[in-house]
Amino acid sequence: MSSVIELVSRLRHDDQAAVSRAISLVENAAPGFEQLLVAIHHRLGQAHRVGVTGPPGAGKSTLTAALATIWRAEGWTVAVVAVDPTSPLTGGALLGDRIRMEGVTLDPGVFIRSMATRGALGGLAVTTREVCDVLDAAGFDRIVIETVGVGQSELEVVSVADTVVLVMTPESGDGIQTLKSGLIEVADLFVVNKADRPGAERLLKELEFALHLGRRSAEAEGEWSPPVLLASASAGEGVAELGAAIARHSGWLRSTGRLAIRRGRRLAAQTLEVVERAIRQWGWDTGLAQHTLSERRADVEAGRLTPYDVAAEVRRRLEGKQ
Amino acid sequence: MSSVIELVSRLRHDDQAAVSRAISLVENAAPGFEQLLVAIHHRLGQAHRVGVTGPPGAGKSTLTAALATIWRAEGWTVAVVAVDPTSPLTGGALLGDRIRMEGVTLDPGVFIRSMATRGALGGLAVTTREVCDVLDAAGFDRIVIETVGVGQSELEVVSVADTVVLVMTPESGDGIQTLKSGLIEVADLFVVNKADRPGAERLLKELEFALHLGRRSAEAEGEWSPPVLLASASAGEGVAELGAAIARHSGWLRSTGRLAIRRGRRLAAQTLEVVERAIRQWGWDTGLAQHTLSERRADVEAGRLTPYDVAAEVRRRLEGKQ
Repeated sequence: MSSVIELVSRLRHDDQAAVSRAISLVENAAPGFEQLLVAIHHRLGQAHRVGVTGPPGAGKSTLTAALATIWRAEGWTVAVVAVDPTSPLTGGALLGDRIRMEGVTLDPGVFIRSMATRGALGGLAVTTREVCDVLDAAGFDRIVIETVGVGQSELEVVSVADTVVLVMTPESGDGIQTLKSGLIEVADLFVVNKADRPGAERLLKELEFALHLGRRSAEAEGEWSPPVLLASASAGEGVAELGAAIARHSGWLRSTGRLAIRRGRRLAAQTLEVVERAIRQWGWDTGLAQHTLSERRADVEAGRLTPYDVAAEVRRRLEGKQ
Repeated sequence: MSSVIELVSRLRHDDQAAVSRAISLVENAAPGFEQLLVAIHHRLGQAHRVGVTGPPGAGKSTLTAALATIWRAEGWTVAVVAVDPTSPLTGGALLGDRIRMEGVTLDPGVFIRSMATRGALGGLAVTTREVCDVLDAAGFDRIVIETVGVGQSELEVVSVADTVVLVMTPESGDGIQTLKSGLIEVADLFVVNKADRPGAERLLKELEFALHLGRRSAEAEGEWSPPVLLASASAGEGVAELGAAIARHSGWLRSTGRLAIRRGRRLAAQTLEVVERAIRQWGWDTGLAQHTLSERRADVEAGRLTPYDVAAEVRRRLEGKQ
């Protein structure tokens, strides 16, 4: 445990080895990870966390790399968490992303980490937030959480951010269809990337129309009105505007008190999730569940017992311990 | 509870009211849902379950409706579970899907159900599989599980199927990028929909190349080699071929014994998930977690305690009950 204390004291953005070790500890829920998270708790809240999501091929990595370059020029340190909740077999694709981000990876003020783990304990969103907490405590000014795809898990993952950016391309299909995925409620900024391709203007108009419909009443009450930006990240176009829009959103969050509200809600959600994880962990640690599963495996396989019978037995055994 | 027994006895595909009630019971984890699942357990395994996933706007609903029409003509009963794990605010989009499926909804041999719930207890994949179990027990011959988007949750959802179909369009972005999402390992069939649009041939070739690279050695060992099909679902083109490919995959699964292996693995995974859900449920039912959360809320909000301190306290209290 003393090594955890030492790790906490070394946790600074310019000690990338310590940052990496702390992230691995948290990612693997290795012994001492909760102690580390407790020890860094008072250091949280300095970083601005930006979630970047959108369909595969929308250019999220390129956009993230371009944003990182801009932020570095402004003097901010930047951490990127690329969340790929898929199997190790897709490692090649992630490597592709890393290569695309090469321009910024040689800069010691930029830290890039891929999370390919499914997060055995607690969901991926919980683990992602804890990794961001480590980076926040390490003093990174900007943290980007980038997802590989767009779906429910990805929505949950980017929901741990202060500002959520949805990246689309003219090719990513009918704009209104894309909005099906619940994104319109989660995204604070919309980017139509690869805007030199046909259909960009149409997607922009569709998005603006859909947002206008959805938010009109909200806007009247001083709500944030999500802008839709055109960009061509690989050519560096529209990236400065995106950076400015993120800064504007960050300012709005602070000036209206929304940042505190959002973070308060997040802390409450986090507490619930961490408690839930503790319950599960405790249940498995009793050994009763594993024991029952071993004893009943053959019966389940042979169809003599159902999974629900086994679950009921585990429950009875847990109750019996009271 | 007697109503559950009655419900089980009424559970047949031609009693859609009973099917609906049973699904609601399971979806809401309402009292008696486990009893129902135990009672139908011996009736499972008759239906062929087909997962249909792909990015929003790929035409999954249109393709599913076209497949349903073909299957109906062959005399099979069909159930469709449309999984939209997003908020009620996106209900409009689901309604759009329902309208698109109108052609088949008047047919009593077709049952369509949208699952918009996030599945408070257990994950969405668990609940989806349980809903499919109800439909299977009710005697539907074909069950389609259709997702709204494509991402980690959606992958898990379609993984409960016997055959997984990935639908893409020439617009859904660079084919290789799409394969990032772990889909190449999960999908048994690939459909390039809207194949009349430019880029369809290129996407087909890219997919075939990627599959060839990934599966060459596997193929030599008698593995399934996932075909890539062209379709234009709205014009009805390529749908018969997809139906035939699904039948071929189903035959392959049976003749090689893979179906039993897949379903055995799924049963083991299901048992683990159901036990995990029971542990969590039991933990919350003790009231200790809720009690601790209430007592410590103000301390967490004020920063005097971290979520991990609260979790540790819950754990100590659970242990104290032993």
